[in-house]
Amino acid sequence: MSAAPVPSPPVPPASRATQICEARLHDGRSYGIHLVDGLLQADALFAALFGHRRALLVAQSEVWARYGEQVLRLRARTGIDLRVLSLELDESRKTLDTVATVCAACHEHELGRTAALIALGGGVCSDIVTVAAGLVRRGIAHVRIPTTLIGQIDAGIGIKGGLNFDGAKSFLGTFEPPEIVLLDPAFLCTAPARSLSDGIAEAVKIALIADPRLFELLERHAPQLLRSAFAGDRALVHEVLTRSVARMIEQLSPNFFEDRTWQRRVDLGHTFSGLVEQRSGYEISHGHAVAIDMALSAAIGVTLGATTVPVFERILRVLRAASLPTDSELLTGELCATAIDHASRHRGGTPNLVVPRRVGDCDFVTDRRQLTPAVFEQALARLRAVP
Amino acid sequence: MSAAPVPSPPVPPASRATQICEARLHDGRSYGIHLVDGLLQADALFAALFGHRRALLVAQSEVWARYGEQVLRLRARTGIDLRVLSLELDESRKTLDTVATVCAACHEHELGRTAALIALGGGVCSDIVTVAAGLVRRGIAHVRIPTTLIGQIDAGIGIKGGLNFDGAKSFLGTFEPPEIVLLDPAFLCTAPARSLSDGIAEAVKIALIADPRLFELLERHAPQLLRSAFAGDRALVHEVLTRSVARMIEQLSPNFFEDRTWQRRVDLGHTFSGLVEQRSGYEISHGHAVAIDMALSAAIGVTLGATTVPVFERILRVLRAASLPTDSELLTGELCATAIDHASRHRGGTPNLVVPRRVGDCDFVTDRRQLTPAVFEQALARLRAVP
Repeated sequence: MSAAPVPSPPVPPASRATQICEARLHDGRSYGIHLVDGLLQADALFAALFGHRRALLVAQSEVWARYGEQVLRLRARTGIDLRVLSLELDESRKTLDTVATVCAACHEHELGRTAALIALGGGVCSDIVTVAAGLVRRGIAHVRIPTTLIGQIDAGIGIKGGLNFDGAKSFLGTFEPPEIVLLDPAFLCTAPARSLSDGIAEAVKIALIADPRLFELLERHAPQLLRSAFAGDRALVHEVLTRSVARMIEQLSPNFFEDRTWQRRVDLGHTFSGLVEQRSGYEISHGHAVAIDMALSAAIGVTLGATTVPVFERILRVLRAASLPTDSELLTGELCATAIDHASRHRGGTPNLVVPRRVGDCDFVTDRRQLTPAVFEQALARLRAVP
Repeated sequence: MSAAPVPSPPVPPASRATQICEARLHDGRSYGIHLVDGLLQADALFAALFGHRRALLVAQSEVWARYGEQVLRLRARTGIDLRVLSLELDESRKTLDTVATVCAACHEHELGRTAALIALGGGVCSDIVTVAAGLVRRGIAHVRIPTTLIGQIDAGIGIKGGLNFDGAKSFLGTFEPPEIVLLDPAFLCTAPARSLSDGIAEAVKIALIADPRLFELLERHAPQLLRSAFAGDRALVHEVLTRSVARMIEQLSPNFFEDRTWQRRVDLGHTFSGLVEQRSGYEISHGHAVAIDMALSAAIGVTLGATTVPVFERILRVLRAASLPTDSELLTGELCATAIDHASRHRGGTPNLVVPRRVGDCDFVTDRRQLTPAVFEQALARLRAVP
């Protein structure tokens, strides 16, 4: 009469996947993030991951239209028990209703406690699958295959899943680590062009707070990366992805559940951007708003003496080289003050505004009184004075 | 520039609350289960728990009708920022829609990440609040005040929250530990009479698998406990609650997330009962079905040589003393076989049927081949032969 514990997932064979890093949660759980060129031909990897259990692949409809046949051929070659749900997904569908649609498919396909969900798509797909995986049978495994740059280096590699609710962005959600994250840069060449520059904004962010070498790579190669849609120089693409992911996990690791500190370097670019996105009626995309926010934060840094002018100018140059905006007519002193007040409410009562110190390092503005209307006006004037 | 970690909840003053036990999860989290006579007069306790943050109390409507005024007076005396949502709840409302209703109230009352939910009601209320607390702002604290016996010794003290979905019982849910559980036996005297005998069925279960002294108390005093609705002999009531809760947490502790073993002693009475409930159109309540299941499991135990006849007879006697059924015309060989097959699918491929060995100990039947149609027929005949 021996007990039968739930089996652990097998580690994919090293020949197909290069592990970028292992994300370790303080509660002992962990997951690997792997770079796999030619992922949809990695038969052994899929057989190892899914050969012993049923899986439901939740695919964003555009991604399924482009890659569905390859997935079906992979399924036929490996004989894995893979079901498919293709969904139209955008920010407006990041809701509990969409999660219920995924749960209904899990029920229809009789997914048991040992089954797995797979997210194939961008950030919204990852969010929906993460929340659904946390709920179905009180939590089943999920695997993420992000297909956008922002998904591959930011939204798809942490443990957060978020849903919009009653008009409130990310009011609902879960912390639910994936079993594994699989990154194939080949998906990027079919992602929408704007999503690439959105992703580069997040790469600039992580470079600016933690990786001078990555920043230099972006300064030198951002235009080429955009032009080639990450399909050109493979060594360059690997290094940009690997550094972005590794630095992001380093930043998240001490505070995965966001309960240890209100000072998060990865909040750089995420103080004013939410309000810019919202007031533009979401005409300005997330990454573009992050770029505008970083430029403004650097200008505020200069005004407060935290950032030097040469660093500020390098930041503007790299953003522009990546075809990213560095200003918006929506930026006003009022928007700045409103955003800072909002951020303070979400960051333990102080603004904790992240400003660059030098490339690879940053500082936090914790005293609300430093952020006067005059500071915002000076920063905006400085931003607009750069040709 | 110091970091501002989220504050830990204060421990309630010992003068008002007697801690029954501390439930410890293997990931380092823990929560206390406290017995508090006169809970709605425990001003210092409520001030300590909620004086520093907003709370939303989710109350089952019948409970609110009976105790709402006391809660409002408590709020007025302590000045705590307590909002209230009264909900009609029954098994048919244990759904994602009801969770969404609670989430909407959280949004309407602007609950932040440091706010807390409070569940005041029976098992369904606890389930709904547990799942909602796991989702709102990616997880906020929740406090449980179970008002039924089954809630106080079983459904309300673990970490599971479950929802029915698409006709599947508990298809969705979460594992989400409460911050604290507060038990006041005074709630039991206004709970529906049938819910008391339902709760006693779970007390008999935990006694049978782990506590001979509790079993003896129930043998001697079950009729009196029922008659007085737990409002009589306070020492007896405290001992029954304390032993039931402590034993339950001991059983849950090594396997809180149900991922360590498929052999759970607390599954006694939970193999055939689900199908009995379902086929009765839920006319037979959960506790009554558990009682029938225990009687049948003991009869199977006798047939297989695991249970002695005197133990079997003691079990029938204690159930009957508690006005619980020990048989149902729904029990057939076919039902037994179907239930065992269903249980096997949920317990790692083997039935892991729990049968009593002696009072305070049990055994698992792991070999499906032992559970033949003849065994079921003999067990049913034995059950029905007892006058």
